Amino acid sequence: MRSITVDLGERSYPIYIGSGLLQSIGERCTEAGFAQRSPLLVVSDTEVAPRYLEQVETSLRSSGYTVVSHVIQAGEASKSLAVYEEVITTAIQGGLDRSSAVLALGGGVVGDLAGFVAASYMRGIGFMQIPTTILAHDSSVGGKVAVNHPLAKNMLGAFYQPSMVLYDLDTLATLPPRQVASGLAEVVKHGLILDREFAYWCQGHAEELLALDPEALGYALERGCAIKAEVIGGDEREHGQRAILNLGHTIGHAIEAVGGYGTFLHGEAIAIGMAGSALLAAKLGRDRQIYEDTVSMLTALSLPTRLPSQYSGEELMEAMMHDKKFKEGRMTFIVPEAIGEVSIISDVQASDVSEVIAQLKKEGSPW
Amino acid sequence: MRSITVDLGERSYPIYIGSGLLQSIGERCTEAGFAQRSPLLVVSDTEVAPRYLEQVETSLRSSGYTVVSHVIQAGEASKSLAVYEEVITTAIQGGLDRSSAVLALGGGVVGDLAGFVAASYMRGIGFMQIPTTILAHDSSVGGKVAVNHPLAKNMLGAFYQPSMVLYDLDTLATLPPRQVASGLAEVVKHGLILDREFAYWCQGHAEELLALDPEALGYALERGCAIKAEVIGGDEREHGQRAILNLGHTIGHAIEAVGGYGTFLHGEAIAIGMAGSALLAAKLGRDRQIYEDTVSMLTALSLPTRLPSQYSGEELMEAMMHDKKFKEGRMTFIVPEAIGEVSIISDVQASDVSEVIAQLKKEGSPW
Repeated sequence: MRSITVDLGERSYPIYIGSGLLQSIGERCTEAGFAQRSPLLVVSDTEVAPRYLEQVETSLRSSGYTVVSHVIQAGEASKSLAVYEEVITTAIQGGLDRSSAVLALGGGVVGDLAGFVAASYMRGIGFMQIPTTILAHDSSVGGKVAVNHPLAKNMLGAFYQPSMVLYDLDTLATLPPRQVASGLAEVVKHGLILDREFAYWCQGHAEELLALDPEALGYALERGCAIKAEVIGGDEREHGQRAILNLGHTIGHAIEAVGGYGTFLHGEAIAIGMAGSALLAAKLGRDRQIYEDTVSMLTALSLPTRLPSQYSGEELMEAMMHDKKFKEGRMTFIVPEAIGEVSIISDVQASDVSEVIAQLKKEGSPW
Repeated sequence: MRSITVDLGERSYPIYIGSGLLQSIGERCTEAGFAQRSPLLVVSDTEVAPRYLEQVETSLRSSGYTVVSHVIQAGEASKSLAVYEEVITTAIQGGLDRSSAVLALGGGVVGDLAGFVAASYMRGIGFMQIPTTILAHDSSVGGKVAVNHPLAKNMLGAFYQPSMVLYDLDTLATLPPRQVASGLAEVVKHGLILDREFAYWCQGHAEELLALDPEALGYALERGCAIKAEVIGGDEREHGQRAILNLGHTIGHAIEAVGGYGTFLHGEAIAIGMAGSALLAAKLGRDRQIYEDTVSMLTALSLPTRLPSQYSGEELMEAMMHDKKFKEGRMTFIVPEAIGEVSIISDVQASDVSEVIAQLKKEGSPW
């Protein structure tokens, strides 16, 4: 079992990565400090629950916990205020009190939704992340929880740290290939922003990663989580440096919003966004080779780097205006300086972004 | 102008109490650190907005701010997830960004709702409380923000401190008498929990307070806010001692929930709850004189201390089971030991509470 600590003072917590961890989840809850007398709420979705929910409930009950569960429809559409309210109703009816905790058993949608439930139920109760996708290695670490508003993604949320992240690699075995690649987009992102060597390692081990080789995957997730933990340890509430984790996300979120959440998978959308950021870098005078290398890496990981022609540039620009990174009238972008190094550029011109969008839609070379 | 500081480390903030403060609200926003480039959202209600909103908007605009406003229907029914979503939509459409702030211009309902908007919009933006009721001297200090769930009051929320509380006494002049008395319930509560002298002072100055005499009222609000600030300074997230502020609230919230929010005003409900706590104290062996003195004080302030006979004891008990203070299977009550001193009793028997409810419904002496 691999173990990492996210260092946030009194809100520090461990991430455990390994095989067979679900079997001991009851003991982990005790280690996390959850009281046996107070009911636990497990939130999962229609993809994950049939495979793992019973096992989790059994382990929790054998450790003396009362368990209520709420299974949401799989997919980004469930990250809504309406579903949030349904989960809260289950929590109230299940008798959750101020010593209770919420366990998020699933991918990023489950984690974000269940996390906002945990953050706001009775003004905040216990929380554990049990990610079952590769993508969730990113969203389950760092305490960003949220639901979507019809006008913008992740608009309602909180910074709310879990007490523990439990990553059972066995749950990844049944992921469909597109989900695997989508998850690897956030993995390689951590290399692109801070660790050149790791980024090229991902490219070199793309085949093993796509085949879910346990050794390669375990290392990639550990390294990805460790980079993320390092960044948020220095800037929990995203006042500054934490924003580098948003590489590719401004364009990526706009793609998701315009396409309707769910047309592109999240990792696919941010892969296109990362290609866009590299194009923006070239526009701002950085080496075009950054773009070429970024596209090579993403392509090796079976990820898209171009935007289908039916996407409207105007709609994408409009969606970006609602993005949280549109601060005080100017656009902020995370722009690569090299592979493994990025800058936060806060006065990007909308016209440059608009041109990048056009380039992303061009066939062949963007130049 | 009176001024108090709520001491919470890096989240410390000032409370200003005085006349004519609304005129300078633009300058206060600058003092609070809100950026002129980012839009401000003023949330108010149908009672308060016609009187003060234009004045507030004018002051903000003359200080260089862009302002969007959202006026909710006055009343507890607006503290819902549905109205919360409407306010969020206004915020998005108004272009609020991460440097924006929400100003709550109104009573407790506006403050709680707008506070949860500020706490969750883009995971938290700036927040200022501008209370326009006496009751809100309590809710505007301390950072508890929330909306109601149909099954329980204040179920969804956060601990989220404002950057400033601006208390313009001029806004209290038009309060209806029932609202004045309701507000004074929380004022005298602060005496009952921690300041015997202040509690009797309230009783002795009941007539001036009910007549909104500026000198008496200014002192009462300053003292009430100061006691609250002292308590929360030691326990921001209610892990322990802060719970004493809930004197009267367990029964009070149940009365509000069963009667339908709005039948009794909040202060009226907790006045009955405080009488109930004093009855519980007697049941647990404390001096009956505590009850007699509590009832005298509340009566002097034109507040109810008895429960109308149509309230069902069973329904009240059921409502308390959903209350946040029902922790790990036992009931926790704040119980007076004397006037100006309370204890947190965490193993109160439901049967004792049930008997107290019956006593509150009896005509004449409860004994």
